[in-house]
Amino acid sequence: MAMAASALRERSLLGLKHLSSAEINWILDRAAYWEGQTEKVIPILKDRFISNMFFENSTRTRFSFEMAEKRLGAEVLNFTASSSSVEKGESIYDTVRTLESMGIDAGVIRLKPIGLLEELAEKVSIPLVNAGDGNNEHPTQALLDLYTMKQHFGELKGLKVSIIGDIKHSRVARSNLWALQKLGAQVKFCAPVSMRAPELERHAPYVSIDEAMCSDVVMMLRVQLERHAGAGIMSSAEEYRLNYGMTEERAGRLSPHVIIMHPAPVNRNVEIDDSVVEHFQSRIFKQMENGVPIRMAVMERAMRH
Amino acid sequence: MAMAASALRERSLLGLKHLSSAEINWILDRAAYWEGQTEKVIPILKDRFISNMFFENSTRTRFSFEMAEKRLGAEVLNFTASSSSVEKGESIYDTVRTLESMGIDAGVIRLKPIGLLEELAEKVSIPLVNAGDGNNEHPTQALLDLYTMKQHFGELKGLKVSIIGDIKHSRVARSNLWALQKLGAQVKFCAPVSMRAPELERHAPYVSIDEAMCSDVVMMLRVQLERHAGAGIMSSAEEYRLNYGMTEERAGRLSPHVIIMHPAPVNRNVEIDDSVVEHFQSRIFKQMENGVPIRMAVMERAMRH
Amino acid sequence: MAMAASALRERSLLGLKHLSSAEINWILDRAAYWEGQTEKVIPILKDRFISNMFFENSTRTRFSFEMAEKRLGAEVLNFTASSSSVEKGESIYDTVRTLESMGIDAGVIRLKPIGLLEELAEKVSIPLVNAGDGNNEHPTQALLDLYTMKQHFGELKGLKVSIIGDIKHSRVARSNLWALQKLGAQVKFCAPVSMRAPELERHAPYVSIDEAMCSDVVMMLRVQLERHAGAGIMSSAEEYRLNYGMTEERAGRLSPHVIIMHPAPVNRNVEIDDSVVEHFQSRIFKQMENGVPIRMAVMERAMRH
Repeated sequence: MAMAASALRERSLLGLKHLSSAEINWILDRAAYWEGQTEKVIPILKDRFISNMFFENSTRTRFSFEMAEKRLGAEVLNFTASSSSVEKGESIYDTVRTLESMGIDAGVIRLKPIGLLEELAEKVSIPLVNAGDGNNEHPTQALLDLYTMKQHFGELKGLKVSIIGDIKHSRVARSNLWALQKLGAQVKFCAPVSMRAPELERHAPYVSIDEAMCSDVVMMLRVQLERHAGAGIMSSAEEYRLNYGMTEERAGRLSPHVIIMHPAPVNRNVEIDDSVVEHFQSRIFKQMENGVPIRMAVMERAMRH
Repeated sequence: MAMAASALRERSLLGLKHLSSAEINWILDRAAYWEGQTEKVIPILKDRFISNMFFENSTRTRFSFEMAEKRLGAEVLNFTASSSSVEKGESIYDTVRTLESMGIDAGVIRLKPIGLLEELAEKVSIPLVNAGDGNNEHPTQALLDLYTMKQHFGELKGLKVSIIGDIKHSRVARSNLWALQKLGAQVKFCAPVSMRAPELERHAPYVSIDEAMCSDVVMMLRVQLERHAGAGIMSSAEEYRLNYGMTEERAGRLSPHVIIMHPAPVNRNVEIDDSVVEHFQSRIFKQMENGVPIRMAVMERAMRH
Repeated sequence: MAMAASALRERSLLGLKHLSSAEINWILDRAAYWEGQTEKVIPILKDRFISNMFFENSTRTRFSFEMAEKRLGAEVLNFTASSSSVEKGESIYDTVRTLESMGIDAGVIRLKPIGLLEELAEKVSIPLVNAGDGNNEHPTQALLDLYTMKQHFGELKGLKVSIIGDIKHSRVARSNLWALQKLGAQVKFCAPVSMRAPELERHAPYVSIDEAMCSDVVMMLRVQLERHAGAGIMSSAEEYRLNYGMTEERAGRLSPHVIIMHPAPVNRNVEIDDSVVEHFQSRIFKQMENGVPIRMAVMERAMRH
């Protein structure tokens, strides 16, 4: 039983903070393997049932997981909270246990409450993959980011990465921070005071926007415009753009070896100017492309014996 | 044509009231067969198209049908009213006829208006499976309940079953009543006066909560909190819990052979105390598990030649 | 690259206005081929991924495409705007590019803004199939209409077709107009002044309701009741019915060779009397049936090499 529990834990992916660099590298290597396949479907997960359980809406992440799962030949059942009995008060725990009872072999889960995922993973006996939990972690996003960087630079060790924007509310920033540092990259944050996360200050320094632009990778975060609206935090999206955005002008001054990243969806002309989204130094759509092999590797890992 | 209509009627599952005990037993036996299979997918319905048509939201029931259908190798198309043109006034009848025209081989349907399902079944030429219609019937739920009881007690004949809660609005209570009595079990109801169904009084007696606890099976129904809110019917959920709930205290006094059931989703600490949901005498998650082989049997029956 | 772009353009289906009659006939012929197959699934698109991207809700059209795609063995991923990050401001363009990046092989798309589809088709490198764009075109609907007419009359050349209703806002009317005229049919419109499209007046004459009833095909359009509500345009649905509806009385006076069509969903007792929907001269459910082989042909075309 203890054995089973630890085996399960090794198949789940709750976050990158407690994942070893060996495990991270295994996933990156397997993603490269999957990306190199010419066959679109390689049914190693034939007759296995995976449920994508989204208690928060997401286009891209759910779709990317579904592509990955289907390319491995799995049966996919989507569950989204907005069309479900969660509306009528069923708790997330009861829902996950219900789907488990019905015989799914693994669950991909996105939810808001922080800490709940760990608790769920203790209680269920199927592997769980975190597709974003509150502002805690979004491990597959960070893995695809690392993969994209490695693809461009060859290795991650010694790489300088700036993460710019709403660090405080960003699970993407946290997952990237933990994984990048484990693999020897150097992380810097850049954010207005109201968007800083005090508990992360001892892990990475906050630098000015000008210094942030001098890294090898400049990763812009999505601004939750709705979160800051009317809060007096920002007088306007335009002010944010001028102070923290990847404007055309800033992009023009980047060293040519630098790449621009963003977890998407982009608020065009806020974090990134419209014309920069598909700039030759931008890897935004490449990141989305890389999400599929990364999630194939993660689901392969979740289902391994 | 008359022949075809009767053959169709034998494949549809509109309710248990008019199903013979032989038919019910056939379904329970086939569910046992499916539960005993080690292969997850046995594609007897390969290349057959099933549509799950939900004109009322439901997580668990739709998901359970989808699992069952996919384990039989069917192609599944989900249709839910909330993301559809039913919003812009298309009637349920027109929708079902539309999906039929497009070539589905069977339809699973949940809807609110009572009596409509019978009418639909007369007019379409594909088998229909009732996934819950108003407060009339929910046959697959009752079948999985019977299956769960039979699994535990060996047989249903002579079994005493208490059904507690909002009998008036419960399709689960009705389907269980009809099927249990057909198979020789004895049903008792327990409910506050406002939740009793006058037309069922000649079929089963209403007993006190203390007497209800003395049956072999104690089945708690979901309280539609939203339905009773502010209606003066119940002063509070807490009052309901104290008078009709499976409290920790009541559970502690149950005879050890008794099992606790609930169709889920549970309002924790209303019908059932939080700590009792996964009590060793509770079969709540087992019921959900059993829903899949039951629905495999029902869909196999719907598609037989 | 120019070659690739033109090959792509030959696989996309953005509208019928610029499609040659040879192309239209090819699609109609292939639909007949698919309709004639006894096997339900013929997996010529095995391991190909198609996304149905609906930025406007639709039951029937999405479902019909999904049936067609699955009957060709494709992997289908549904995307609807209402359960997606389009809500949080992601543009249609970014969504389509995102799904493309993730590796879909073709996209079926419904959207509101006119002109956007052409722009998208220029920018992405997968074939796109129009499932309805604003009031511009709805090519697969018109193709299935043509197919239904051809099935009944043997050929389209010389056929007289009346299109009755809200021409101004109808993409169905436009797609039918372009295609029918290309194939030698004669189109007449019939509409109250407020529902006429001035820019179409040089393509087809407006006639009285009595004259409209004398064609070989009488195609009723759906009235967008919500669009005209309270606009003073129509005093009531009943007034519309009396002036422009296919009442029981008008249906009774039709020549027996005439067929009644409607793109559905029908507002019963507005455009068409309840009792006429399944009249022996009505082809409404036949149209829906024909939608599947038409879309099989269109998706086959989209995926050809």
